[in-house]
Amino acid sequence: MAAAHVIVTSTTDSEAAARELAAQAVDARLGACAQIVGPMTSVYRWEGAVRTDQEWRVEIKTTAERVPALTERLRQLHGYDLPEIIATPIEGGSAEYLAWLSEETAR
Amino acid sequence: MAAAHVIVTSTTDSEAAARELAAQAVDARLGACAQIVGPMTSVYRWEGAVRTDQEWRVEIKTTAERVPALTERLRQLHGYDLPEIIATPIEGGSAEYLAWLSEETAR
Amino acid sequence: MAAAHVIVTSTTDSEAAARELAAQAVDARLGACAQIVGPMTSVYRWEGAVRTDQEWRVEIKTTAERVPALTERLRQLHGYDLPEIIATPIEGGSAEYLAWLSEETAR
Repeated sequence: MAAAHVIVTSTTDSEAAARELAAQAVDARLGACAQIVGPMTSVYRWEGAVRTDQEWRVEIKTTAERVPALTERLRQLHGYDLPEIIATPIEGGSAEYLAWLSEETAR
Repeated sequence: MAAAHVIVTSTTDSEAAARELAAQAVDARLGACAQIVGPMTSVYRWEGAVRTDQEWRVEIKTTAERVPALTERLRQLHGYDLPEIIATPIEGGSAEYLAWLSEETAR
Repeated sequence: MAAAHVIVTSTTDSEAAARELAAQAVDARLGACAQIVGPMTSVYRWEGAVRTDQEWRVEIKTTAERVPALTERLRQLHGYDLPEIIATPIEGGSAEYLAWLSEETAR
């Protein structure tokens, strides 16, 4: 991970499940804060056909250092066999906010 | 493109149009999966004045290798003269998920 | 900032406040366009406990060059003491769109 701060994103099939993932990540200081967006329509291929489902997305802001542990915790908590868990870089913005983000996820 | 995996995002003026862009991208294996978020409010300048419109966003997860072909396909399908088509990098997360993403978009 | 084009994102506690941030950024040519997503659920730690609130997100597309001035303007306008203001990189997509983005935010 090049960037020091990242957004770790996953999707799941209910708002309650998304809230639980977010609360556990923040409670364990694996993320500083999280947003839940949804319902949204997900489009994917399953058994040869293109399908759609309703999903909710959880976006957790954290440090690159916490990504491995957060990825593992999300995998354990998630209801899917192969959940989407991706990390996208934050490359700038408010220095105070990014410092807060680091403090909130410090061990 | 530095990152191996990316999110290609576009916006359009109806949910149906967003669904069509997503389904065509996944069906052609130009994207592994897509999410449609909306309605959202878009704010932009047009003929000197700041205006707002309702739009839907389609976010397609794919590999950097597929970005040129996916960009071209979205441009052909899109109803706008100059559509937003941007690629943002994925820099980490679940190795299994990213491997699935690559397999789904392999030729 | 490595990338030439970026998305500057902030969150706030009302749709009206999000629209105001977006309109001011576009009007001042600190951003080419913006999208407002919400309501969404935000999860964060406050005084030792994990809490949730309803928020709206404003996502402003601009150039890396404009990030410092846009960050400062958002900080002045924002109702929070320590607002989230982060910049995430755009690494590719439609060359015409990215050129439009640069023209819209040129001085």
